[in-house]
Amino acid sequence: MRKFIEQTDRGCAAGKESADSSLRNRANRVIPNGMYGHMSAQRLPSGYPQFMDHGTGCRVWDANGKEYIDFMCGWGPIILGRKDPLVDKAVQDEIAHGDLMNGPRPVMVRLAEELVDMIPHADWSMFAKNGTDATTCCISIARATTGRRKILVARGAYHGSAPWCSPSIGGVLPEDRAHLVYYDYNSMSSIRQAIAGSEDDLAGILVSPVEQRLGVRQSYGTKEFAEGVRALADSTGAALIMDEVRCGFRIDLSGTWASYGVQPDLAAWSKAMGNGQPIAAVTGRNWLRNGASKIYVTGSFWYSGIPMAASLATLKILRETDAIQLIRQAGARFSAGLQSQAESFGFDIEISGPAQMPLLLFSNDDDQQLGSSFSQLCIENGVYIHPAHNWFISAAHQFTDIDDALDKTNNAFRDLANSVS
Amino acid sequence: MRKFIEQTDRGCAAGKESADSSLRNRANRVIPNGMYGHMSAQRLPSGYPQFMDHGTGCRVWDANGKEYIDFMCGWGPIILGRKDPLVDKAVQDEIAHGDLMNGPRPVMVRLAEELVDMIPHADWSMFAKNGTDATTCCISIARATTGRRKILVARGAYHGSAPWCSPSIGGVLPEDRAHLVYYDYNSMSSIRQAIAGSEDDLAGILVSPVEQRLGVRQSYGTKEFAEGVRALADSTGAALIMDEVRCGFRIDLSGTWASYGVQPDLAAWSKAMGNGQPIAAVTGRNWLRNGASKIYVTGSFWYSGIPMAASLATLKILRETDAIQLIRQAGARFSAGLQSQAESFGFDIEISGPAQMPLLLFSNDDDQQLGSSFSQLCIENGVYIHPAHNWFISAAHQFTDIDDALDKTNNAFRDLANSVS
Repeated sequence: MRKFIEQTDRGCAAGKESADSSLRNRANRVIPNGMYGHMSAQRLPSGYPQFMDHGTGCRVWDANGKEYIDFMCGWGPIILGRKDPLVDKAVQDEIAHGDLMNGPRPVMVRLAEELVDMIPHADWSMFAKNGTDATTCCISIARATTGRRKILVARGAYHGSAPWCSPSIGGVLPEDRAHLVYYDYNSMSSIRQAIAGSEDDLAGILVSPVEQRLGVRQSYGTKEFAEGVRALADSTGAALIMDEVRCGFRIDLSGTWASYGVQPDLAAWSKAMGNGQPIAAVTGRNWLRNGASKIYVTGSFWYSGIPMAASLATLKILRETDAIQLIRQAGARFSAGLQSQAESFGFDIEISGPAQMPLLLFSNDDDQQLGSSFSQLCIENGVYIHPAHNWFISAAHQFTDIDDALDKTNNAFRDLANSVS
Repeated sequence: MRKFIEQTDRGCAAGKESADSSLRNRANRVIPNGMYGHMSAQRLPSGYPQFMDHGTGCRVWDANGKEYIDFMCGWGPIILGRKDPLVDKAVQDEIAHGDLMNGPRPVMVRLAEELVDMIPHADWSMFAKNGTDATTCCISIARATTGRRKILVARGAYHGSAPWCSPSIGGVLPEDRAHLVYYDYNSMSSIRQAIAGSEDDLAGILVSPVEQRLGVRQSYGTKEFAEGVRALADSTGAALIMDEVRCGFRIDLSGTWASYGVQPDLAAWSKAMGNGQPIAAVTGRNWLRNGASKIYVTGSFWYSGIPMAASLATLKILRETDAIQLIRQAGARFSAGLQSQAESFGFDIEISGPAQMPLLLFSNDDDQQLGSSFSQLCIENGVYIHPAHNWFISAAHQFTDIDDALDKTNNAFRDLANSVS
């Protein structure tokens, strides 16, 4: 019997299959493994729903009708809350024009101008559909510009799901990862050692602004590290490539390392850019513009105006309001409350990473039993968190929602304390 | 001075910059080369607009307000016409639920069931965003399942814009294309020669149902060729992978080679699947299901319900009406009319490929001067065709639209005849 059939149908009348369970059974017939990718509930403790029905603001309802305060935000894209009226209006205005008309709508130019205006290193921009499209474009542009091959990549970092970067090796050939050179995050000595002797073949240094590995505490890139990779790029003539897909637009609109005074040469953006609409972007400096013109990248839906209009509306709100500060404050309030609750119930936890995208891990929890049980209890109590991946806070998380969530997580901690006592 | 600035602003008052020209100038500042990819008007003769304003049915209006009867359909995705009321209603119903809720909506299961029900070889389905995502998944699944490396690929075929398949070599390393083995389309002897000695390392045979190369007459895969690649896959244990991204859903809902009695093991779908909404799919047989479970592929927006609902609505119309037959008849009427006009003006042309996606080429036109001039004159007369890429007809092309277009192409042929006489 497969795992997903064993899962408990919480809240389901005895003997009657829940809507989620029924959908899982049907999915298992027509989708490999019933579901694939990062939203597969099979990667989560039992009790998580697989299928969702609807959502608004910071709340979602699963296929069984159960409500959750959502702290994953669709794994990042939702930054203003679902069904934001201004973004939705921009989407409807664009839909009214029709779509895919053998050339982009003027909104494409306005969006490129907005990114160039907003992001210090950005002299130009290109658009795509997936974060993977954007990171892949960046390495192609770095190679096309420099005529070199090597790309430095942090060990264990997630940069997408193409064969060159997928976290699985299923279907991947060694050649797909030829000329990737791996280093340890936040370690300049590791970088220098990894590339020693091949500096003149170095096309790019790919780096995320925060180290965010599944099940591992999040580490900010240090100022020393940020300045180190910037200096190495400058001295070797390689491109410093920032993967902003996860952090972008949530921490600092000038780039996550802007407060360090460090700007990359190329950056990949996606997720929060259009509040859920499918869009990705590459931004870059002028010295990489010709290389960007030499690669051939495109997609059937890349010039759709709908997500571009959603992105313009999203960026306008982020620029003109204190949305990012509110997201930070909501995240900080949630983290502080969780920390206090854990202490009161005698649990040793660490909440790491930016306040806007925290991750809670239990100390001394090598088998992840505590983290797994806690997340199950949160789901049961109506709070959607993840046991191993960083969470995402949105501007729709009002303090009242945070306090509501904390009431529920308090129940989860209490039940957890009871179950281990 | 760059080419796009030299382009004529037809219909623009003397001395006043047109909207399209102004947008091009702005785009050139903030987008490499002003525009990239398949919708770049710089790849077209002068006179083509770059930016579009709106569209409905089979008609589009450019940024200067000029109207065209459109024969590119957004390069394929538009199969029912823009702003189709039933598809738009499905999109709106899905938008009303909110989107990206940490798990797919039930519509994902219904769409997978629909593909499995409709396509004979499909035992399962997976969804993505780009045609490139789908073709890349197919080769990863074939490799993961067989544990082999080689993929047979037709010389000059377009399978997407990732480094392994991009038509450009800018930013591409030789390793990106390791273990691709090239053959000549429709030639079993070329295939046998290409793979001789490596049959036991053959993971997949990638093939398009029609050979569609830029500027070259379209050739259907012959029945002998279709049966030959099927037999080679069977005898070697490799997967026959059909790239249906361009032809899919326009020729035969059971697969473009279904009339030959030939079904693939894996297929990549996209473009017309959601009448313009961003979606791609992989379908496959049961023996590849486990391999499909072993690869890790995903994307931030892959589980969005909006394009899935659009696709269900599109497929329902295609299955329950005679839409494909109407598209074929409209295409045949257009081709016959063009052929007759060419003859009456003394031009030797060939219209090749499926009636639903014809391509007109002039004979004895090695420098493409006639084709280029004719397409310019069509644009001037309000008919949007492409001089080198196959066109796409939609169900919104009524006979009255075709006849309207033929009035305009008659003017184009007459002007062409006058210009060369």
